[in-house]
Amino acid sequence: MLSEIIAVGSELLTPYRQDTNSLFITEQLNALGVQVVFKTIVGDRRPHLALAVRYALERTDIVILMGGLGPTEDDRTRESVASTLGVRIQRDTELLTALYKRYAERRTTMPDNNAKQADVIEGAEILPNARGTAPGQWLDIVFGGHRKLMMLLPGPPAELKTMFTSACLPRLRSILPEKHMAHRVLKMALLPESEVDARLAPIYTRYKDVETTILAHAAEIQLHLHSSKPTQTAAESRVNELAGKIEEEMDDLIFSSQNETLEQIVLYHLEMRGATLAVAESCTGGLLAERLTRVSGSSRSFLGGAVVYTNELKTEFADVPEELLEDYGAVSAQVAEALATGIRRKVQSTFGVGITGIAGPSGGSAEKPVGLVYIALADGQQTEVVEKRFSGDRERVRWWATQQALEMIRRKLL
Amino acid sequence: MLSEIIAVGSELLTPYRQDTNSLFITEQLNALGVQVVFKTIVGDRRPHLALAVRYALERTDIVILMGGLGPTEDDRTRESVASTLGVRIQRDTELLTALYKRYAERRTTMPDNNAKQADVIEGAEILPNARGTAPGQWLDIVFGGHRKLMMLLPGPPAELKTMFTSACLPRLRSILPEKHMAHRVLKMALLPESEVDARLAPIYTRYKDVETTILAHAAEIQLHLHSSKPTQTAAESRVNELAGKIEEEMDDLIFSSQNETLEQIVLYHLEMRGATLAVAESCTGGLLAERLTRVSGSSRSFLGGAVVYTNELKTEFADVPEELLEDYGAVSAQVAEALATGIRRKVQSTFGVGITGIAGPSGGSAEKPVGLVYIALADGQQTEVVEKRFSGDRERVRWWATQQALEMIRRKLL
Repeated sequence: MLSEIIAVGSELLTPYRQDTNSLFITEQLNALGVQVVFKTIVGDRRPHLALAVRYALERTDIVILMGGLGPTEDDRTRESVASTLGVRIQRDTELLTALYKRYAERRTTMPDNNAKQADVIEGAEILPNARGTAPGQWLDIVFGGHRKLMMLLPGPPAELKTMFTSACLPRLRSILPEKHMAHRVLKMALLPESEVDARLAPIYTRYKDVETTILAHAAEIQLHLHSSKPTQTAAESRVNELAGKIEEEMDDLIFSSQNETLEQIVLYHLEMRGATLAVAESCTGGLLAERLTRVSGSSRSFLGGAVVYTNELKTEFADVPEELLEDYGAVSAQVAEALATGIRRKVQSTFGVGITGIAGPSGGSAEKPVGLVYIALADGQQTEVVEKRFSGDRERVRWWATQQALEMIRRKLL
Repeated sequence: MLSEIIAVGSELLTPYRQDTNSLFITEQLNALGVQVVFKTIVGDRRPHLALAVRYALERTDIVILMGGLGPTEDDRTRESVASTLGVRIQRDTELLTALYKRYAERRTTMPDNNAKQADVIEGAEILPNARGTAPGQWLDIVFGGHRKLMMLLPGPPAELKTMFTSACLPRLRSILPEKHMAHRVLKMALLPESEVDARLAPIYTRYKDVETTILAHAAEIQLHLHSSKPTQTAAESRVNELAGKIEEEMDDLIFSSQNETLEQIVLYHLEMRGATLAVAESCTGGLLAERLTRVSGSSRSFLGGAVVYTNELKTEFADVPEELLEDYGAVSAQVAEALATGIRRKVQSTFGVGITGIAGPSGGSAEKPVGLVYIALADGQQTEVVEKRFSGDRERVRWWATQQALEMIRRKLL
């Protein structure tokens, strides 16, 4: 089964806004065994919209329209679909009454144009909107001699998601042949995509019935494994078998097999061990602390830390000896080590992390170029320090440095 | 002039990847007076790709294809365009030689399939790729009796941007009627969109020749003003006149009129005043420090700070008296104030910021609900404390709290 998703709205054709609803819909459709083969983004002009609808009906079986169901003049999805199908639009009295009632309950008068939201395409089923005023519509029709399913959904993500899950999914499930899909995500940090692929291609290519996708992003490799089988057990068993082989090959380089973030995994291991963590950051400027505290409940293991941009603060908050700063410079293995041990002692945590480097774009020299970062991890017995030269811009250097730190903590805790 | 952008690649039809190139291309095209009326995302299958190309040529004048120019079997943009146009593909010997040379220089042998990148559509001009191996192609053709421009560009953003700017823009400028566009962005923090619109609609609706777009995102309102006129001076004078009226109405609520971020503006004002800043963050966990240090050169005014998740650290790093924590609790106006004054004294900065609150989703109570945040700003003379109840999830509460802190510093420095 092939599907097309059409996002409607002139704002989605500007440089400032992007459709993200389609990612959710795609995930949902894939799980039903439906492939998305086109996504179209179209504005509010009726002829364009009608064209997009016609092409979509000609080339796919399931057409999902998102947006353009509101009360304003720009909301033309209903009319465009009706005109493409050559059917009429009728104002639904029940919907209209409900709209008036909604406004009356809030003791305001409904603006006249809002009545438009009670317009229903001939032959369509109404999909109630639990989170807003614009109802959706479901069409199960014959077009060009073939059966086609069409859904008109509201644009706001919360409304769209609720409506799709509650009204469209059950209908699709009852129509589509039953599919059993299994899905696993394995994650690795800091490895180059080429290395992962070279090691794993000989394994995953043997599993023709499991679709393997390698995604590289932000110092992380994700392996997505998908399989579709007559039964759920069969699908899961294939995916798990391949996941097992991959885990055997990559061993503890895989930090997550249940889609957790690296921060979550580090905090999980800390908590399991009853250990605590503190960080002293220079070039990452708080990014490591910020990443850790994104996780709700992080306060159970992460105590806090210091952002020590100046030499004085390195001494004040992490007890870095002034001589060390003078002798080796703020960006040095020695200072990274002193930051890690110092913050650990000061905060009285199990582990301490120190990061110092040159995030760029300015501040680099021949001896200490932009991208040079020292990351240290202290546990009270010994301190591990690594020197890295990250490429890319300021944002990338900072991100990779925190990723390196998190991965060091994780490996320490294994 | 109407345009369609086609992003090619099966990975763009998964739930994990999204086309972002089109935002850049849209901005560039708009500046030339070309409107993007469709965006299509299509996979690697040749019939689908050919369909997308044909529809785009039928409904628009300028068609931009991005991706699918590489050496692998999945790279089928060239073939699909050629078959839609009914022309042949020729292997260009000069391109081929250049490819072989590139590999020879790196002392590696070129894989056979790479030769595909030397394939040129009959009638196309070659667009050199300064950042990669896959050249682009430019077509100026007649299709269905109308003149059409087509560009085939590589998918990697760096390659695409360089090629579009260096090769496509000059060609488009020489063909398209000269347009003079002016564009301004005005930014405001923390205001509700409805309030901004209510105050400004009476002003901007009077300027029919300036297109005004209001975008609300992440505790920030952006007003985009566009105008297109026969001369650059005329366009700029209209945009500046409207911008002036808006600035009169909103006064110092507007923090930027040159597209700077709030962090940049705060650092700019600090530097102008020769002032320095330190922060003590509890619930924002380093996000404020991280936002400030995103800006290159921030070390000139931002000295650093502390992430004080535990009560002990609030005392250790920001000298918050233990009695205060006992009497009022960590989330209180008193502790926020103590954090701000304490970190300021400790770091010896001009200004100190303290943030304490409940980011959620857990940790809230009837008395101190999730979203309650105290933000304090100390300057040595007095300390300003505000109490806020932010709605939304952990990420949103943390973001709004830092936005509030930045706006407080900015207004202090006015």
